[in-house]
Amino acid sequence: MARVNENFLKLKAGYLFPEIAKRTLEFRRLNPDADIIRLGIGDVTEPLPRSIVSAFKKAVKEMKKKKTFHGYGPEQGYDFLVEKIIENDYRARGVELDKDEIFVSDGSKCDTGNIQELFSVDNVVALEDPVYPVYVDSNVMAGRTGNALSDGRYEGIVYLPCTSENSFNPDLPKENVDIIYLCSPNNPTGATLDRTALTKWVDYARKHESIILFDAAYEAYITDKNLPHSIYEIEGAKEVAIEFRSFSKNAGFTGTRCAFTVVPKNVNANTSNGKKVFLNGLWNRRHCTKFNGVSYPVQRAAEAAYSDEGKQQIRSLIELYLGNARMIREGLASVGFEVYGGVNAPYIWVKLPSGMDSWRFFDKLLNEANVVGTPGAGFGPAGEGYFRLSAFGESKRIELALKRIKEKLKL
Amino acid sequence: MARVNENFLKLKAGYLFPEIAKRTLEFRRLNPDADIIRLGIGDVTEPLPRSIVSAFKKAVKEMKKKKTFHGYGPEQGYDFLVEKIIENDYRARGVELDKDEIFVSDGSKCDTGNIQELFSVDNVVALEDPVYPVYVDSNVMAGRTGNALSDGRYEGIVYLPCTSENSFNPDLPKENVDIIYLCSPNNPTGATLDRTALTKWVDYARKHESIILFDAAYEAYITDKNLPHSIYEIEGAKEVAIEFRSFSKNAGFTGTRCAFTVVPKNVNANTSNGKKVFLNGLWNRRHCTKFNGVSYPVQRAAEAAYSDEGKQQIRSLIELYLGNARMIREGLASVGFEVYGGVNAPYIWVKLPSGMDSWRFFDKLLNEANVVGTPGAGFGPAGEGYFRLSAFGESKRIELALKRIKEKLKL
Repeated sequence: MARVNENFLKLKAGYLFPEIAKRTLEFRRLNPDADIIRLGIGDVTEPLPRSIVSAFKKAVKEMKKKKTFHGYGPEQGYDFLVEKIIENDYRARGVELDKDEIFVSDGSKCDTGNIQELFSVDNVVALEDPVYPVYVDSNVMAGRTGNALSDGRYEGIVYLPCTSENSFNPDLPKENVDIIYLCSPNNPTGATLDRTALTKWVDYARKHESIILFDAAYEAYITDKNLPHSIYEIEGAKEVAIEFRSFSKNAGFTGTRCAFTVVPKNVNANTSNGKKVFLNGLWNRRHCTKFNGVSYPVQRAAEAAYSDEGKQQIRSLIELYLGNARMIREGLASVGFEVYGGVNAPYIWVKLPSGMDSWRFFDKLLNEANVVGTPGAGFGPAGEGYFRLSAFGESKRIELALKRIKEKLKL
Repeated sequence: MARVNENFLKLKAGYLFPEIAKRTLEFRRLNPDADIIRLGIGDVTEPLPRSIVSAFKKAVKEMKKKKTFHGYGPEQGYDFLVEKIIENDYRARGVELDKDEIFVSDGSKCDTGNIQELFSVDNVVALEDPVYPVYVDSNVMAGRTGNALSDGRYEGIVYLPCTSENSFNPDLPKENVDIIYLCSPNNPTGATLDRTALTKWVDYARKHESIILFDAAYEAYITDKNLPHSIYEIEGAKEVAIEFRSFSKNAGFTGTRCAFTVVPKNVNANTSNGKKVFLNGLWNRRHCTKFNGVSYPVQRAAEAAYSDEGKQQIRSLIELYLGNARMIREGLASVGFEVYGGVNAPYIWVKLPSGMDSWRFFDKLLNEANVVGTPGAGFGPAGEGYFRLSAFGESKRIELALKRIKEKLKL
């Protein structure tokens, strides 16, 4: 008799974005003529840069001829892409990595969801609250938590509150934790961890032999020159940190699918009898056993993100989105909202008027201004009382959304 | 202090194909002028069909314009593809499925590796021996086995030997098993399970409330009109079976990446206190949490596999590979080998002369004929004494390989 993994049953109702989609669909059913503006899901809206499309098309054409056809590639990604990653994302910032420390994949959601498989079920997980829900959900599924508590937390997880009170810069935990998820620039708060904050975490991890899982999917939005883009810019991080990067939010690959994970060869964890095991080999084994590489034309498209033309086109995209972010920040501030983020990140984190529940604000914003945003509570209990707006979208539509918020939202 | 998942440490040395690559590379280093013919890895060699490339290119072009750009799609795949799958792969064979029973993914390796997450760690797994190594390796990683035994088996797994003695049609297990992996047409033996054999398994699963994980990645190679292509052609299978399909081996997508998994809504498993849980919802949750959909242009390319032109071009590809298979079967039989498979599958399963070890034959074939094949032992202990040759390759090269085997191999 087959038995299910009952950890799945601990998961609370629907993953955040499907729930938003459901409520929006229901609103549309009842209001078929409403002009809904979506500032909810963190999906890019600008097309792929021209130079990337060119490279993509060229690689598709290669698939038509026997001589240039590509079947299975290396599970870890082609050297042509890995070399560009090392050169541009790391060496340019003073970080040296070897090719076999980079693992190309089809998405950071997959990688951040799968990475926990390398660890035993009894590790204590700490994560920022609020944060991207995949970290906690994937650990719930794996049995690394107890049940959901009434406040939305899961037993056994150490939540690191990030609120306006601590400037969204979480304190070190009082208890010992083994695995620490950090997301910087943070989704959803838009806050970034500076060199001092990251050093604090790296030092903690070295002292406690913990592992930092560092999600840098939004690093391209960093405008402040003093902020690190990679955790490996911090002394000692190559012994304790795994870093996740994506082409989704810089090059617009949300529907094209390419990302990568860095597992430096010195990062290790322990067996129950104290033997060190290097995680690079473990992740390589996982990657080769349960993954078969990223589509060849997609890897060629990703490679083009590092051409001079590609870099310039990506820079323009990011400036466009950051311009939207500034507009949202200023628009909301002008009607009295307390706003955070949106400077080094495409997300604006809005503090709701005291006592306002974030799903209630979701419904209110949808009903009164026909604008879709993302309830802060969906990212963790400390997100309650906040709301995420995304800078992905057309400037004109965002302008219209702000106009409606100013005129129609009854606060 | 972070602790590793020690189940990974139970895994035996390198996954099969990396080991083959390593030995081949070493041979090339020592014999830089040797003309190696690769009949080892099951990778297609013919380019993508023209109609598929056209659709692929067209979709890439759509990504260049705001109006036709695609960001995140549904994690489960676009309706345009799901509808074609239902119509052509199932309805055409008398099987009715709903759209939300199909989950498009980037590969069957991923799906067959990930599916075990839905089950508790104490399920007893049965699998054909020999078979595609991902099934056993993913269960080892999850802790569903004990240690590796000296004969290559893992403690706790129920192996179902498939040898020439039982015509590669495994017997039902004597013990109760909860999860049963079946691969038909089988990789590596090339054997298919007919209606009677599949009915036997479906009846077993219904009686014991087991789940069948049915890998049909090679169904397009079935030439015998009486053989089922889908397990759902068997009465009652929609209550107990999950089916895996891929575009890799029919449409040549090994480097393009698209596959799908069917989880009918009635398939269920139990909680520890006897409650039924439907696996469709669980897989949907897993898919939405740890996966972000297949590249949009790749899904358009896969859709084109179902156009009239696409189907015809795929048919020609398969005939070409099956022609190679016949050549290998006949060539090896003519020098006295006992050969199996190669009729409804692209793999030829060669019985080695008595007492010949399959890795030793690998080295011998490489050294004497400069031909790379796959040692049977790599697919499971009952594969020892056998060797897999793949029909993927150029007819002329296969002819040359056979000539060398006839002239140079010292048996």
